[in-house]
Amino acid sequence: MSRFVDLDAIRNACANLPAGSDSAATAVRNRQAILTKPPGSLGRLEELAAWLARWQSRPLPRLDRVETLVFAGNHGVTQQGVSPYPATVTAQMVGNFSSGGAAINQIARVAGAVLRVIPMELENPTQDFTQDLAMSEAEFLHAVSIGHEAVTPGGDLLCLGEMGIGNTTAAAAIAAALFGGGGSRWAGRGTGIDDAGLARKRSVVDMGLDRHADLLDDPLLIALAFGGRELAAILGATLAARQHGIPVLLDGFVCTAAAAPLVRLRPDALDHTMLAHLSAEAGHHALAEALRLRPLLDFGMRLGEASAATLVVPLLRAAVACHNGMATFAEAAVDDRD
Amino acid sequence: MSRFVDLDAIRNACANLPAGSDSAATAVRNRQAILTKPPGSLGRLEELAAWLARWQSRPLPRLDRVETLVFAGNHGVTQQGVSPYPATVTAQMVGNFSSGGAAINQIARVAGAVLRVIPMELENPTQDFTQDLAMSEAEFLHAVSIGHEAVTPGGDLLCLGEMGIGNTTAAAAIAAALFGGGGSRWAGRGTGIDDAGLARKRSVVDMGLDRHADLLDDPLLIALAFGGRELAAILGATLAARQHGIPVLLDGFVCTAAAAPLVRLRPDALDHTMLAHLSAEAGHHALAEALRLRPLLDFGMRLGEASAATLVVPLLRAAVACHNGMATFAEAAVDDRD
Repeated sequence: MSRFVDLDAIRNACANLPAGSDSAATAVRNRQAILTKPPGSLGRLEELAAWLARWQSRPLPRLDRVETLVFAGNHGVTQQGVSPYPATVTAQMVGNFSSGGAAINQIARVAGAVLRVIPMELENPTQDFTQDLAMSEAEFLHAVSIGHEAVTPGGDLLCLGEMGIGNTTAAAAIAAALFGGGGSRWAGRGTGIDDAGLARKRSVVDMGLDRHADLLDDPLLIALAFGGRELAAILGATLAARQHGIPVLLDGFVCTAAAAPLVRLRPDALDHTMLAHLSAEAGHHALAEALRLRPLLDFGMRLGEASAATLVVPLLRAAVACHNGMATFAEAAVDDRD
Repeated sequence: MSRFVDLDAIRNACANLPAGSDSAATAVRNRQAILTKPPGSLGRLEELAAWLARWQSRPLPRLDRVETLVFAGNHGVTQQGVSPYPATVTAQMVGNFSSGGAAINQIARVAGAVLRVIPMELENPTQDFTQDLAMSEAEFLHAVSIGHEAVTPGGDLLCLGEMGIGNTTAAAAIAAALFGGGGSRWAGRGTGIDDAGLARKRSVVDMGLDRHADLLDDPLLIALAFGGRELAAILGATLAARQHGIPVLLDGFVCTAAAAPLVRLRPDALDHTMLAHLSAEAGHHALAEALRLRPLLDFGMRLGEASAATLVVPLLRAAVACHNGMATFAEAAVDDRD
């Protein structure tokens, strides 16, 4: 039994999302103005403190409980030759996560984030979206529900990410369906496909857009049509975090595309999220622009696994530490401006 | 007695700087290629691991001993009205550093960096550079030597920064003298001066360039002519770090300008440094370009205090953790590319 019994249940959840706390954000701005530094001189660190305060509804934000959720799924569209890696790698990398050998294991340790990896029926790939809907409505609702339930209430920050051979193709199709432009605008090299593979991948996206042309008006049907399960779970987790008052760090291209349908249901649906980085994956810049998300980092990364979302956590820790821990001009007996 | 007995001693030190270890950097590149990720997908994290390895001369870099040095100095040029804050603030902020109330105290704690603050004759400001040389040769050599001696041999990473009311004016004059363009190109709002103050600051830089026109061929005389002591100390610390095999993170506009004269003595003199961020201070973008330094972060910060240099340390920790801790494809039994 899924939490969301039909697509309308997701739409209703979206319609009833809580707002952030203006008073907590205002309290942050007021305190920033009297801390021992020139006004505004901590730049985005000040903005981050205010954002965390707004969505945690606390004038002094905290980052005691930081969680990284990585959802993994397999994709029928891999049979079209859209990745240089075999689909077996998805499950193998989940094993690598479990034994601590992946990038995200190391990054989560540095960040002080608790890592949880949630494999989603890896033995049962979604359908090839050039041939059929990637998921049935029941499968989609189940995946969204798993993502929703995975979020621990009471957390202070949630980092979202994914693993799934073939999922940059699904993400490109979703972005194209939501924002227009076709495969040439949105498909990139993913894990590193060659020129011929990239051409194939673009055409696969275009075939998918043709195949499902009749449902591209509905953002949830777009997510269902192109998949995958891990993307649907990210959508569900993003919703749950908003309901629980937990700010979210979005990872790269796939993660951003997974959450993007929510903006078509409600323009402010991603206001509790921050984009961790600008991925080197070709479509990410356009996707971030379309969603008006300003990335924190531009490190040329393109790994997924919530690697960038978790990487930036210490920057947020510094923002919180400065905001909560600095002395005011009066406390430190430092002369303010003439 | 200064370590550097004359300007030639600094020139000689610069001429004899050690090179980095090609073999350590190559070892990093070779290992990166077999770790469980698509080649290059960790972007600048891979570059950072190789850079640390090269300058630490270790194939597996480490960050056990990270030090942040903040040098503080006072500037005679403040009598020209180039800052909205009174010069008393320099010493007061040093007090704030000591009692743990400044931004850098919070950021160093998050970064796991040991913070040391070195006040440099705050009761004895440098001369107003529009009237005279900021420092005598003996004063300059003493300041460079203090910076040089402050670096702890055996460290793994050094973050450099400064505090000094008026020092963005000195930094702008140094940048203008080294790279051309005058006050309008290099002077910014510093701690937040108004339009009239900015116009005054630009003209003060131009007056300084005129006053010392006869010595602008010599990068060390430029550093001596415009000051201040904290900038000279950063120059000395940057040299010492290279000699000790310690990679350096440079902070913002003032810190970058302080190290810049070294590049005129030797083009590769800053190869062991990384620019932590692009400051919001107006001249920093042009200065980074002139030095071909690619900033890691663009957070709109403009505080100094080594705040940005120390802020990015956890990103380097993640780079090291990934490089040293990830499993290879063979170790994790993950299929490599088809």
